[in-house]
Amino acid sequence: MALEVALAALVAAAAGAAERPALMPWPASIEIGAGELAVGPDFRVAVSGRGGAIVEGAARRFQERLGRRAGLVLPSPVALAEKPTLEVRCDGPGKPLPQLGMDESYTLTVTPGGATLQAAEPWGVLRGLETFLQLVVPGSATAFRVPAVVIGDRPRFAWRGLMLDCSRHFMPVDTVKRTIDGMATVKLNVLHLHLTDDQGFRVESRRHPELARMGSDGLFYTQAQIRELVAYAAERGIRVYPEFDMPGHTTSWFVSHPELASAPGPYEIERGWGVFDPALDPSKEEVYRFLDGFLGEMAALFPDPYLHVGGDEVNGRQWEGSERLAAFKKQKGLKDDRELQGYFSQRVAKIVTGHGKKMIGWDEVLLPGLPKDAVIQSWRGQESLEAAARQGYQGILSNGYYIDLMWPAERHYLVDPWDKGVDRLPEADRARILGGEATMWSEFTTAEIVDSRIWPRTAAIAERLWSPREVRDVDDMYARLDATSRWLEWLGLDHRAVYPRMLERLAGRRCRELRMLADVVEPLEDYQRGRTGHFTQQTPLNRLMDAVPPESDAARVFSRQVDALLADAAKQAGREAIRARLQEWQGIGVRLRPLLEHEALLREAVPLAEEASALASAGLEALGFLEQGVPAPESWWTARAPLLEREKRPPTGLEVAYRPAIRRLMEACSRGGSVSPAPEGPAVSP
Amino acid sequence: MALEVALAALVAAAAGAAERPALMPWPASIEIGAGELAVGPDFRVAVSGRGGAIVEGAARRFQERLGRRAGLVLPSPVALAEKPTLEVRCDGPGKPLPQLGMDESYTLTVTPGGATLQAAEPWGVLRGLETFLQLVVPGSATAFRVPAVVIGDRPRFAWRGLMLDCSRHFMPVDTVKRTIDGMATVKLNVLHLHLTDDQGFRVESRRHPELARMGSDGLFYTQAQIRELVAYAAERGIRVYPEFDMPGHTTSWFVSHPELASAPGPYEIERGWGVFDPALDPSKEEVYRFLDGFLGEMAALFPDPYLHVGGDEVNGRQWEGSERLAAFKKQKGLKDDRELQGYFSQRVAKIVTGHGKKMIGWDEVLLPGLPKDAVIQSWRGQESLEAAARQGYQGILSNGYYIDLMWPAERHYLVDPWDKGVDRLPEADRARILGGEATMWSEFTTAEIVDSRIWPRTAAIAERLWSPREVRDVDDMYARLDATSRWLEWLGLDHRAVYPRMLERLAGRRCRELRMLADVVEPLEDYQRGRTGHFTQQTPLNRLMDAVPPESDAARVFSRQVDALLADAAKQAGREAIRARLQEWQGIGVRLRPLLEHEALLREAVPLAEEASALASAGLEALGFLEQGVPAPESWWTARAPLLEREKRPPTGLEVAYRPAIRRLMEACSRGGSVSPAPEGPAVSP
Repeated sequence: MALEVALAALVAAAAGAAERPALMPWPASIEIGAGELAVGPDFRVAVSGRGGAIVEGAARRFQERLGRRAGLVLPSPVALAEKPTLEVRCDGPGKPLPQLGMDESYTLTVTPGGATLQAAEPWGVLRGLETFLQLVVPGSATAFRVPAVVIGDRPRFAWRGLMLDCSRHFMPVDTVKRTIDGMATVKLNVLHLHLTDDQGFRVESRRHPELARMGSDGLFYTQAQIRELVAYAAERGIRVYPEFDMPGHTTSWFVSHPELASAPGPYEIERGWGVFDPALDPSKEEVYRFLDGFLGEMAALFPDPYLHVGGDEVNGRQWEGSERLAAFKKQKGLKDDRELQGYFSQRVAKIVTGHGKKMIGWDEVLLPGLPKDAVIQSWRGQESLEAAARQGYQGILSNGYYIDLMWPAERHYLVDPWDKGVDRLPEADRARILGGEATMWSEFTTAEIVDSRIWPRTAAIAERLWSPREVRDVDDMYARLDATSRWLEWLGLDHRAVYPRMLERLAGRRCRELRMLADVVEPLEDYQRGRTGHFTQQTPLNRLMDAVPPESDAARVFSRQVDALLADAAKQAGREAIRARLQEWQGIGVRLRPLLEHEALLREAVPLAEEASALASAGLEALGFLEQGVPAPESWWTARAPLLEREKRPPTGLEVAYRPAIRRLMEACSRGGSVSPAPEGPAVSP
Repeated sequence: MALEVALAALVAAAAGAAERPALMPWPASIEIGAGELAVGPDFRVAVSGRGGAIVEGAARRFQERLGRRAGLVLPSPVALAEKPTLEVRCDGPGKPLPQLGMDESYTLTVTPGGATLQAAEPWGVLRGLETFLQLVVPGSATAFRVPAVVIGDRPRFAWRGLMLDCSRHFMPVDTVKRTIDGMATVKLNVLHLHLTDDQGFRVESRRHPELARMGSDGLFYTQAQIRELVAYAAERGIRVYPEFDMPGHTTSWFVSHPELASAPGPYEIERGWGVFDPALDPSKEEVYRFLDGFLGEMAALFPDPYLHVGGDEVNGRQWEGSERLAAFKKQKGLKDDRELQGYFSQRVAKIVTGHGKKMIGWDEVLLPGLPKDAVIQSWRGQESLEAAARQGYQGILSNGYYIDLMWPAERHYLVDPWDKGVDRLPEADRARILGGEATMWSEFTTAEIVDSRIWPRTAAIAERLWSPREVRDVDDMYARLDATSRWLEWLGLDHRAVYPRMLERLAGRRCRELRMLADVVEPLEDYQRGRTGHFTQQTPLNRLMDAVPPESDAARVFSRQVDALLADAAKQAGREAIRARLQEWQGIGVRLRPLLEHEALLREAVPLAEEASALASAGLEALGFLEQGVPAPESWWTARAPLLEREKRPPTGLEVAYRPAIRRLMEACSRGGSVSPAPEGPAVSP
């Protein structure tokens, strides 16, 4: 077999078809065999076994997507072909809804003569069909093809989620649906809807319709829409559970129910971003009665056994300021607000449990008295996940997967739920780490741009949570991410299309010029944007920083070229490509000035364009020194080094993405061109 | 005032701001004044008068869109500012739902000090706000701006519609919603949903759930979704009415109700395209009982007073073959199938009237006995519209507005409901021509590409139906259409984005090469595509012909350049631009061959690419003769003329869009370069 595989690889290489399949997430085991299966007009799918409606629906959607990809006319509904090209066998129907721990494993065998997908439950069929679709590639003059493979696949973690913040900016139903489509493609299996926060109460309560009516500007999900979303996700093997963040993050509740707050009202929907004072009053029995009614209604609306009650970021100001609460703490023997929150959490946990649900909360709920079946979602760090596991609690990791922070895919990708000593936990404790969730907080994200904030980076997190821990080659990941990104667009997501569309809105017919700059800048990471100006829910997210992708592909490729050059400067590998790029970028300032200066929304970018040019010039100079093999004079370094520091609060909220690569070029030539590349990091003096 | 205007124009021209506002449709009257209104951060809207919820909702959406366009932070909800930048005054609330003949007029006055929008009813406010948004342009370093104008506007026709065929391919709810958004932007006011046909029964009946269950593959609108669409459209001043095409085009009904057909069943959903035999049996009383129940239910579901019952394309085969019907005709004294359809129409008209609705039908329902308040929708031609008007019937024109036929916008634009003698009708008769409807038949259109089939061309039809008849400058229309097309994309339509996305699916990273060809070809017009292969509902619409826009912008611009050159060849105006284009196109065949030959979905385009190259070569030769001022030898013409004929049934379903311009170049040089341009048309020998 090994020889066969090796030969096949040789043959494939000769045919120019030796690329690794662009699978994402990468499967648990894959063996590439000899030859390929033609996907032509006679392609037929047959479903056997007892998979039921989930499998039948999946097969229909599979046919439609395969047809669209490969131009095949496939019979609808799925025919029970006698000699199918792809046979789908599902042993049993599983539970009617996706559950934590459902069996998602599958085996996919493709030979030149046909393919078989086998799974114990429908969820494995769903995952396997996505794998098959990702394997279909063009390349033959008469048909598409799938390489011969044997794939045995199963997820590393059972909880692979995406949290969508529908409160700060509302996300319409069809936005959520296409997000679910994307999740299914990369084998994510949990959608966590952050439904309430200071800035919006986004779900209809029949018991308390005033909550959404007064707390949402009319932007909320009806119960029918929630049911529609839950069903849509379930068909794709994705659980949906809600979060009602409390006791803080509750201003929008208080617009209609000021009596639940710890300080007197009236309250208005919060328009700003940050951590605010309003919090539920833990001393009032009516608060628990209210929550019991409301959470009971929501427990019935959402079928998943888990229910998230938030618990994060209570700043304590309303509690500190309340005489009533001071007396209450004294009476109950609670020594501080932390214990007061602990008391509240226990009461809420009882309510949640009383309605047959398990409670999830952010790190802060990990306090004495928490029920043992609660799940901790760690936003603060892996340490609290470890602490929770040691105390016997299950946990999921979100720290490191905050996709609103504009990190490159690579940085998320390399965060593992077992990092920071978690892998040294006793196995029984470690097994309590259920997985993780990417979190799409939406202060700086509207429905218009949310696709570009979630995708394609979330696919890298999905791979971290599904694939074996050893799968962590960054370049390989990026190559597959690029293919995945296109594939996601064909599903109906528009993370790529929104970019030129927004540049056009900013620059009209001159959007190509603007793109010269836009392609090489990146939004500031972490929470730096909030410090560059005043932003609220009413700020339109229509600027250059909202248009550009979180990560510059051009800068990443350039950075790799620089690394290659510096690793072996004698070879001068790629030097001319680097020079060409730098010469192009050097022209940005001059080329763009007439455009930027005359547009109200772009004028802020004039210094950014100048910076991009100056950095490119410095890079070209450095390249010259490297080429001559002489160290750059110290005066040169002194004159150019300030370029390596960027403005602290650039009004554009953007950064020149190739600055770190220029730093490496400059450092290398300043030491005579013999220096190996420095790690990217904050600017330091030489 | 005239001097003031003239001066303002001079000043504006000096400031480089003299472009005509990109308004579409062009208003009934517009006077461009002096200066401009700055649209900056202090922009405020105030609503006064008695417009009610429609106006309030419109103002909210207006603020959101203006904010997104111009980067403004606008208060939400709309503030009753004391000194508003834009004051919206609405005299009265109008009827709660949009109606035929509603008052859509408005007056918009913009001065450097502020703007006022005044309308008698909310519908005029909706139209005027769209106009204001289209006037907002960038161009100042500190703010957006609106030119000072006085616009008095009202529609020429009261019925300005779009028909969407949801039967041949289903159009999901969010697709219909964004279509409504686009319609509102160009002031269309009627959405006609073609809900049933041979290939799908797309609406839930509670009385007969089996109709959709068995006749739609599960793809239909629930009644809740219909109500949602009707409300969504009403908020935007758009009526929605349904069509239930009968007695033909009814195969999907018969899957669950074979007893209603004129021949015994069983029936299956029709997958092919064309005119099919199945038809309701006009002799059966149970048919009318069934229709009475079903149409009564639909009459209650759709609030608009109009209900469309089709009536087109009964081929008569089932009727001819039925002994029962032969006897029935004899008994009723109906001499042929035409009279049999007349009998059926009268019965259906009574049912429709009985449920309080007015009936609409296609041309064929214009038969003796038709109720006088029926409306004829003319698909066959303006003659039948004229005939209907002379007989006292109201009518709307669709012939000439079939956007599925892939005509260029220009051709639709120049069709006027008063053409072909209609304007010679007595005024009372002519007043019965209510307007027109663009028709989006969906045999070759799925939800994925429907935006690109409707937009932007439908905006040109919208202008024809709204603007004064004299507005018909084609170049001016195209300039404004281009701006409108971008504006529509920012609304959420993706008629432009789908193009590169589909090219990527066809060619992967080599989509740029493919675009060389794609940009200069056009889908075959009229019904020619159907003759190039076998197409059904199951054929994926994923080929090059599905990806390219109906009209090639590059070829149109080139055609204008050729016209300019030939109009005054001595001046040689634009000759070098023409040469550069032709040289580029000459390379298409060689550049694309390696790509096209190796892709199963693109191989069919090899001859097309060769043709594109050969035509460009011939054009270059012709340019050479013109340059030298010598007539081309007859042998040259004889050798090259076959290029001007295209293959009858090209497998790509595509045509080289610059062929007619090459013909003109070739003809001109064959007669010594002194010939004025020939009209585009079918190929003739010289």
